[in-house]
Amino acid sequence: MKKVGIVGASGYTGEELARIIVRHPEVELTVATSRQFAGRKLGEVFPNLRGLVDISLENIGPDEIIDRAELIFTAVPHQTAMGIVPKFLAAGRKVVDLSADFRIGDAAVYEEWYQAHSAPEYLAQAVYGLPELYREKIRQTSLVANPGCYPTSIILGIAPLLKAGLIDAATIIADSKSGTSGAGRAAQVGSLFCEVSDGFRAYKVGEHRHTPEIEQELSLLAAQPVTISFTPHLLPISRGILSTVYASLRDGVDTAQVAAVYEDFYRDEKFVRLWPAGTYPATQYVRGSNFCDIGFKVDPRTGRIVILSAIDNLIKGAAGQAIQNMNLLCGFAEDQGLAVVPLFP
Amino acid sequence: MKKVGIVGASGYTGEELARIIVRHPEVELTVATSRQFAGRKLGEVFPNLRGLVDISLENIGPDEIIDRAELIFTAVPHQTAMGIVPKFLAAGRKVVDLSADFRIGDAAVYEEWYQAHSAPEYLAQAVYGLPELYREKIRQTSLVANPGCYPTSIILGIAPLLKAGLIDAATIIADSKSGTSGAGRAAQVGSLFCEVSDGFRAYKVGEHRHTPEIEQELSLLAAQPVTISFTPHLLPISRGILSTVYASLRDGVDTAQVAAVYEDFYRDEKFVRLWPAGTYPATQYVRGSNFCDIGFKVDPRTGRIVILSAIDNLIKGAAGQAIQNMNLLCGFAEDQGLAVVPLFP
Amino acid sequence: MKKVGIVGASGYTGEELARIIVRHPEVELTVATSRQFAGRKLGEVFPNLRGLVDISLENIGPDEIIDRAELIFTAVPHQTAMGIVPKFLAAGRKVVDLSADFRIGDAAVYEEWYQAHSAPEYLAQAVYGLPELYREKIRQTSLVANPGCYPTSIILGIAPLLKAGLIDAATIIADSKSGTSGAGRAAQVGSLFCEVSDGFRAYKVGEHRHTPEIEQELSLLAAQPVTISFTPHLLPISRGILSTVYASLRDGVDTAQVAAVYEDFYRDEKFVRLWPAGTYPATQYVRGSNFCDIGFKVDPRTGRIVILSAIDNLIKGAAGQAIQNMNLLCGFAEDQGLAVVPLFP
Amino acid sequence: MKKVGIVGASGYTGEELARIIVRHPEVELTVATSRQFAGRKLGEVFPNLRGLVDISLENIGPDEIIDRAELIFTAVPHQTAMGIVPKFLAAGRKVVDLSADFRIGDAAVYEEWYQAHSAPEYLAQAVYGLPELYREKIRQTSLVANPGCYPTSIILGIAPLLKAGLIDAATIIADSKSGTSGAGRAAQVGSLFCEVSDGFRAYKVGEHRHTPEIEQELSLLAAQPVTISFTPHLLPISRGILSTVYASLRDGVDTAQVAAVYEDFYRDEKFVRLWPAGTYPATQYVRGSNFCDIGFKVDPRTGRIVILSAIDNLIKGAAGQAIQNMNLLCGFAEDQGLAVVPLFP
Repeated sequence: MKKVGIVGASGYTGEELARIIVRHPEVELTVATSRQFAGRKLGEVFPNLRGLVDISLENIGPDEIIDRAELIFTAVPHQTAMGIVPKFLAAGRKVVDLSADFRIGDAAVYEEWYQAHSAPEYLAQAVYGLPELYREKIRQTSLVANPGCYPTSIILGIAPLLKAGLIDAATIIADSKSGTSGAGRAAQVGSLFCEVSDGFRAYKVGEHRHTPEIEQELSLLAAQPVTISFTPHLLPISRGILSTVYASLRDGVDTAQVAAVYEDFYRDEKFVRLWPAGTYPATQYVRGSNFCDIGFKVDPRTGRIVILSAIDNLIKGAAGQAIQNMNLLCGFAEDQGLAVVPLFP
Repeated sequence: MKKVGIVGASGYTGEELARIIVRHPEVELTVATSRQFAGRKLGEVFPNLRGLVDISLENIGPDEIIDRAELIFTAVPHQTAMGIVPKFLAAGRKVVDLSADFRIGDAAVYEEWYQAHSAPEYLAQAVYGLPELYREKIRQTSLVANPGCYPTSIILGIAPLLKAGLIDAATIIADSKSGTSGAGRAAQVGSLFCEVSDGFRAYKVGEHRHTPEIEQELSLLAAQPVTISFTPHLLPISRGILSTVYASLRDGVDTAQVAAVYEDFYRDEKFVRLWPAGTYPATQYVRGSNFCDIGFKVDPRTGRIVILSAIDNLIKGAAGQAIQNMNLLCGFAEDQGLAVVPLFP
Repeated sequence: MKKVGIVGASGYTGEELARIIVRHPEVELTVATSRQFAGRKLGEVFPNLRGLVDISLENIGPDEIIDRAELIFTAVPHQTAMGIVPKFLAAGRKVVDLSADFRIGDAAVYEEWYQAHSAPEYLAQAVYGLPELYREKIRQTSLVANPGCYPTSIILGIAPLLKAGLIDAATIIADSKSGTSGAGRAAQVGSLFCEVSDGFRAYKVGEHRHTPEIEQELSLLAAQPVTISFTPHLLPISRGILSTVYASLRDGVDTAQVAAVYEDFYRDEKFVRLWPAGTYPATQYVRGSNFCDIGFKVDPRTGRIVILSAIDNLIKGAAGQAIQNMNLLCGFAEDQGLAVVPLFP
Repeated sequence: MKKVGIVGASGYTGEELARIIVRHPEVELTVATSRQFAGRKLGEVFPNLRGLVDISLENIGPDEIIDRAELIFTAVPHQTAMGIVPKFLAAGRKVVDLSADFRIGDAAVYEEWYQAHSAPEYLAQAVYGLPELYREKIRQTSLVANPGCYPTSIILGIAPLLKAGLIDAATIIADSKSGTSGAGRAAQVGSLFCEVSDGFRAYKVGEHRHTPEIEQELSLLAAQPVTISFTPHLLPISRGILSTVYASLRDGVDTAQVAAVYEDFYRDEKFVRLWPAGTYPATQYVRGSNFCDIGFKVDPRTGRIVILSAIDNLIKGAAGQAIQNMNLLCGFAEDQGLAVVPLFP
């Protein structure tokens, strides 16, 4: 049993990591940190874990974490991650970082959207942790930059089309809708039940920090700079992201061609499910699983394609993908601990 | 007290009409029809109305309705409406038709998206019931074609920009999200709580029948043919539509210019509320009211504008707008019965 | 127009008071206080009010409030209220206090469940603001202690039976379920969307502070000391309380007798709606209204009666009842500003 | 791999059985029937199963089912089950029946609450499938009558107290609240999103058909006839039942004694989790799992105990318990396929 640790285990992503690790046959959770809940049992802070995990949350520093874990998940806010990840790496630990700190290869771009970067020298070795694009590189690194939730849904949805050159990369619009767990477990008025329930709204229109991450990956796929419109919205659901992505098709591209490109691109992927043309995925059909479900519609009236891409934001959009990356880093079967059937209804 | 009738009062739209009429000081509900629930009290079929309205649902024909009502709301499916509306008009009754049958001026377009039209000779006199665009014409007609819910949110959201020529009409994409009441009270699996709750999905992508209605009005505003991408989605909420509309801005158009155009266009409108730049409306802030709330974001990175437009689909998107039209048809104050503060939380 | 003020206008109850006052023809909101949001427009803090109320929140003391309002709603936490209410009364202002501070006539009981009482000398003049029980007394006082939300639903549900002696007062069990707005707008983890949604739990079992208030009123109705079991639960809805109340019936009491007692007790009440035997109220049928809907089932198998009592916790359970009390205090029609049809769906 | 079949696989319970079986290492789903959806892939009817199960629904008779399955789950309505279960048993098949038809040992009682029983001769061999009470008997039978959802939560909640004689069996009141999946996937108005969402109501007060089943088991535990008050309510959630059970304690029984009795009763149970006194379970903490979580409060003021018992109605309340019973029938590890961590949030 490999020993793994979670830094920042009192948020929803940390909890979700613990939830998966509990049933993962190859790893053992040996340390979980939290400043706010130090001293409390994980199963008290998240009562769904009651009786299933015996660990208590601790407020300890990197050195002690290094002593007790071989692989470390950093589920902390950006800026915090860049302060500790280098220590873990220097001590020979493998790291799956769930923050944004190592996702963007160009420090200048990072600093434009976030803040100053204190460890830019690690950007080169960080691999963007989307296994469907970077499986081999992930296997060979020590630092995986686990993708953002929105980027995962958007990039997986559009990658085959960009790669195959079927769309005009200048016309991409991503209209995304996320469940409220994406806002985390912080106590803030905007995340209260009464503020979110029976409602719907957009936020950070054209300004969300996931934008440069999406553009970086789309640019690599398109082999040209790509700028997109990205609008996140808040759904009155706990889990799930649905991204509706629009782009103009190259002349003459039809449904069959698009379907073939998707089939080809995702042929051997265990966690991508393609929907037949004219049928569409839904967040409730991937709930609780590591799947990314993708459907599309070619619209001859407008010459555009509309792509629908659904994930569970806490799993394929965060903790599940992190476990998938861990499996690759450690040489486990890629779906170990993740072979879960979505929970519906 | 003017006598009004509701044909098709057992759906959510019919109920909402009744709910507003009960508190409207100038009109009296004298007849409400339903095939399925004939003989039952309206206050039993919709227990929120218990004790507030004494009327029973009846299964009666047009002649009897004509005898008992001076103004008639037809809240029936398309195709059904075109069979009865001519009779009401011929008998000198005023009609607010909530179906799609008289919304599209060109019968050929209607027939392409719906089915054969049996009363095309009435299309010329029908006025599209969006008071913010057609107030004077509505006052002078006998037949108002009450707009669809999605079209109301999209057209109001984008009308000022098209009218002022600030956007490229060829680039419009409307990504709309609707509450489940839009699917009506019919017992179908897709509308069950367990199918909708904690989930989100798109449907009829690029094929929804509201498309030609939207395009008709946008084309008139732009004074050129407009084709749009329109994607409806189903929200796990009862009431509310939020439309996120994208378009490329003409060169040099900035936030101040856009704001001025909106201010100017909606200066005297009681039911349109403009949000300051960078703040966005939400369905929960218009719930239960006849408001259309509009916000926008100019994105210099992409040269696009993103417009957010929120309504209560059962009110401004259906029954409330129908009452607003009735007020115009009858010479009442336009906000009579509609001066309601949105219910939040 | 009478000038009214709201002390503590940034919570859901304060907002709801403002929402009703905006449309009340006899009063004008002249002052609204908030420490946290001082300086901000009420319509920004609660965007549903955007454009409908022009007032800004202020952080001011009792003297200034007294200068600007003739009647004052205190929508502040218990203990805070007892510090300011006496000043308002001393200055000749009428007060509707929405806290618990003046609800319990016996200061010793109050102090057992809450904390020390600093103004017990005002308890005698405070009238418990349940108009269905104390209408005449309310008209003649200057201080109304507006009832708690749970107590309103439970007391109205069981009052007729206790008064008529149809039940054994020693057997009363109240199992209540409340929407999350009852927890207020404070930012706390337990009220987050992700903690409440798609879930259900009990809390403060047998220990909720509304217990002594309920027992006080039931004891007065029964003319004997009454002790009850009271279990509150948290519903994943914004508004609404349903209380399910159990009691053993006196021998021989049947459905007809119970129905007659209810009919008689609530004959002239505008805000109580009785449901026919065997049909039951629901929170969604009173949403947005000041109604208390009551149904019941006599169960001969067990000799018990089960009473179902539904209110909107923010309206009949708080702000609406406060307005009803204001109407009585000021000699307005009792339903002025409250003649609203419940919003369904 | 043992071959298992599901009769009635197009409802939520059937789907849940399939969902668990897909990941169960000892069994294989070889046949799944549905009249309505015959010919369609299970993964189309329930898109969460897309790509995970290759079976199509069939409309076939008992003989063919017998040919293809060694163990059969009957997930059909009562009355239908009694028509086919005898055929399966006669052919030597093991049956886990999820209907009510074989739960009640006394045919007369069954007929009083349901309708005539056509196979009463099988009642004697049917074992009530609550493993925590009847584990050994289940291992030795061929026919398990899988308990109802409400009964599971109530019986497990109160069994230890009745068995130990700590409560007065004449005073039991069970106030239960269920998620909407309990109403099944049938298209009916009462289960529509708009009718259930943001609402709460009671139904079949004192008349629900689970009553005799609960009373049968409580009577056996108490060794005396027990009659209870049982009130089911409909929660706006998909999954979960919380039962709040009240009973008068025998004189002198205290918290420690109650806790000891629970600990003792459930010491070795894998699927019962006890909560420390004063803390309470919630449906969201058992979601997606086979757990029954139990908490309680001893209330000295009233002499009553309040028990809170939470399950996922589709799992421990239906399909999960059926799998647990299958595991016992087949000699598998009891938690095979069921070792799932609850999904929260």
